[in-house]
Amino acid sequence: MQLLISRDILLNAINLISKAADKRHNMAVLANLKMVLTDNQLLLTASDLEVELQASVNLPTGACQQAGQTTVPASKFKDIIKLLPDNQVSISVADDAQCHIVCGKSRFKLGTLPAEDFPMLGQPEQITPVQVGREHLSDLLETTHFAMAVQDVRHYLTGMLFELKDNQLATVATDGHRLALARTLIDNVDNVELSAILPRKAVLELQRLLGELKKLLPNHDNQITLNVGREFLQVILPFGEVGSDGQMQNPILVSFTARLIDGKFPDYRRVMPSNHSKVAHINQEQLVHVLRRVAVLSHEKSRGVVFDFLNQESLEIKARNAEQDEAKEELLIKYDGEPMEISFNVAYLIDVLNVLQGDIQFNMSQANGSVLLHQVNDSFHEYVIMPMRI
Amino acid sequence: MQLLISRDILLNAINLISKAADKRHNMAVLANLKMVLTDNQLLLTASDLEVELQASVNLPTGACQQAGQTTVPASKFKDIIKLLPDNQVSISVADDAQCHIVCGKSRFKLGTLPAEDFPMLGQPEQITPVQVGREHLSDLLETTHFAMAVQDVRHYLTGMLFELKDNQLATVATDGHRLALARTLIDNVDNVELSAILPRKAVLELQRLLGELKKLLPNHDNQITLNVGREFLQVILPFGEVGSDGQMQNPILVSFTARLIDGKFPDYRRVMPSNHSKVAHINQEQLVHVLRRVAVLSHEKSRGVVFDFLNQESLEIKARNAEQDEAKEELLIKYDGEPMEISFNVAYLIDVLNVLQGDIQFNMSQANGSVLLHQVNDSFHEYVIMPMRI
Repeated sequence: MQLLISRDILLNAINLISKAADKRHNMAVLANLKMVLTDNQLLLTASDLEVELQASVNLPTGACQQAGQTTVPASKFKDIIKLLPDNQVSISVADDAQCHIVCGKSRFKLGTLPAEDFPMLGQPEQITPVQVGREHLSDLLETTHFAMAVQDVRHYLTGMLFELKDNQLATVATDGHRLALARTLIDNVDNVELSAILPRKAVLELQRLLGELKKLLPNHDNQITLNVGREFLQVILPFGEVGSDGQMQNPILVSFTARLIDGKFPDYRRVMPSNHSKVAHINQEQLVHVLRRVAVLSHEKSRGVVFDFLNQESLEIKARNAEQDEAKEELLIKYDGEPMEISFNVAYLIDVLNVLQGDIQFNMSQANGSVLLHQVNDSFHEYVIMPMRI
Repeated sequence: MQLLISRDILLNAINLISKAADKRHNMAVLANLKMVLTDNQLLLTASDLEVELQASVNLPTGACQQAGQTTVPASKFKDIIKLLPDNQVSISVADDAQCHIVCGKSRFKLGTLPAEDFPMLGQPEQITPVQVGREHLSDLLETTHFAMAVQDVRHYLTGMLFELKDNQLATVATDGHRLALARTLIDNVDNVELSAILPRKAVLELQRLLGELKKLLPNHDNQITLNVGREFLQVILPFGEVGSDGQMQNPILVSFTARLIDGKFPDYRRVMPSNHSKVAHINQEQLVHVLRRVAVLSHEKSRGVVFDFLNQESLEIKARNAEQDEAKEELLIKYDGEPMEISFNVAYLIDVLNVLQGDIQFNMSQANGSVLLHQVNDSFHEYVIMPMRI
């Protein structure tokens, strides 16, 4: 294998995918990047067997001097390419099975592992393609990801449900104490129904890639295709350098493939509370400031805060920690219902408020009943929080 | 105790000193800030018994409604003051020994500990004042601090020597493998001789405060007075808000007091190599780039790199790690001496090069002899590095 390539383009490609490499996996080759060089293309792959990221770089004539493939240690390779003195790099693997990197007067020899040993997830089968705008997809992830469980024996909770039904694509996340649901309208001419659970790490990785794409093309709302298979979700994302004419140069196609969680997600429709005998409207900005202050003196473990709905326009919010420190605030609100005291984990509330704005509607029934939150006049983002006993 | 004060001024004072509070000390009161309120002054103190920081805030008439003193949990107090909704805060301690913080509709009660229980370092005795410009003092610390030992049974190595002799103030730091020496000229009309070892944590804290002072008054080179006592070093630093006229408003005087290390610092003059049979001149910028690249493939533990002085104008720099990866670079230099191979810990070299610029002179004798480094034509900053065997 022998390649002449621009350092900047190579570094760009490495940066997009190298996070997926897994230094601590007991398959040593997963700490490596796989490189496959053909006549006019360089294919880089990083994987931890849950998320596989692949960058394909189109090469100009003469760049590929000898086709071939290998794998190199991802983090050392990235550090070296990042620090190289010139933009023209030669990368080759000779009979000694070492990867030689030459740039100006710098020479590096890196140990390799055979490309054949690198486990590939393969192409998803029985694909259903779902088209969604980049902004909408980002929004679906941003407004729900925080409610995924971090660790749970119910492994389906450590992921995000993607559900396609009628003309709606929904994402749902829940850790059993709170639930986040976001929806967007899409074309679904064939009236397909789909349900797939994307693992936590894959969700965060996809968010990162969509963020990078937004940085690159802030004003261009690409259509993104989610290829939903039986075992895998695949997304192709068009990266590269944006030229002065706003067009993409030196395109780098990144393919994101994630193994889906095999499990049955709880039926979120059954969790949504429907009895709303008590309704409050609270300004998001005021509430989030109050909660951040009160949170300082909430119990370090339970993070409990008490909402005391005093009357139709007053809410008192209180917290007390193990050292008996106390915080108390008063807030002007609109409230329709009997006076009631109800307690929440303040972190759950702040997570939800961080993705909302304007007036927030709290739909409640009783002190131990779950609460439905949403922006006034927005039915596309809904949140359920279980109250706690203090 | 009862106080009306501007949140911004109070927060400013807390931010300057709260880092010295020690949450993990087994004297619980050291996790607190001490507040002493008198008619026209609020005195805040934080300490870990090694470094004591005190901020004194001048108060306008009416601010002190009842003199008194207390201590409050530093990090909770800081978080609350930072998040308060208005600029006017009332802070009081009543008969219940709780600290009441009231601001707008926010109310907080914080547990206190008696001010009498807060251990104070006291005023240094037998003070010798040493005057030095802020920029020079910062430079003395910045260009030597990295060579202090982090942990060492020779506790005097975990600090920085301040030495006054003739008309020179010097700082010296060494961990036994490398040594950094910086000097500046000062007025020393009384021909005082001084030698004091400031502990590592105090050095870093003083650097932070000098950095804050520079941010506040970037163009004003304050004269700083080091009050060197037998057991303590004290420095008074003038903070506040800079008004549109460039004058300091709402002054906050910060007093930094540190317990000195009781020990005998090695005689650095005996460590400075004097036999220079081989001299190299190497450009700082080129060398530091080469070393950062080569360091990627240096041994993870020893961090060794080999300098191979080939002839009067060529230096080859090589590294090899446990996995037998290899890096090799060539550099154009000026060299006067026999060809020689000598090895260094690359981290030690990069630490030194980060505070130097232009052409760097390496003064060497043999492969196992210590090396003296300095900028060409700068005798005020000198560095000694022991070579290593690879």
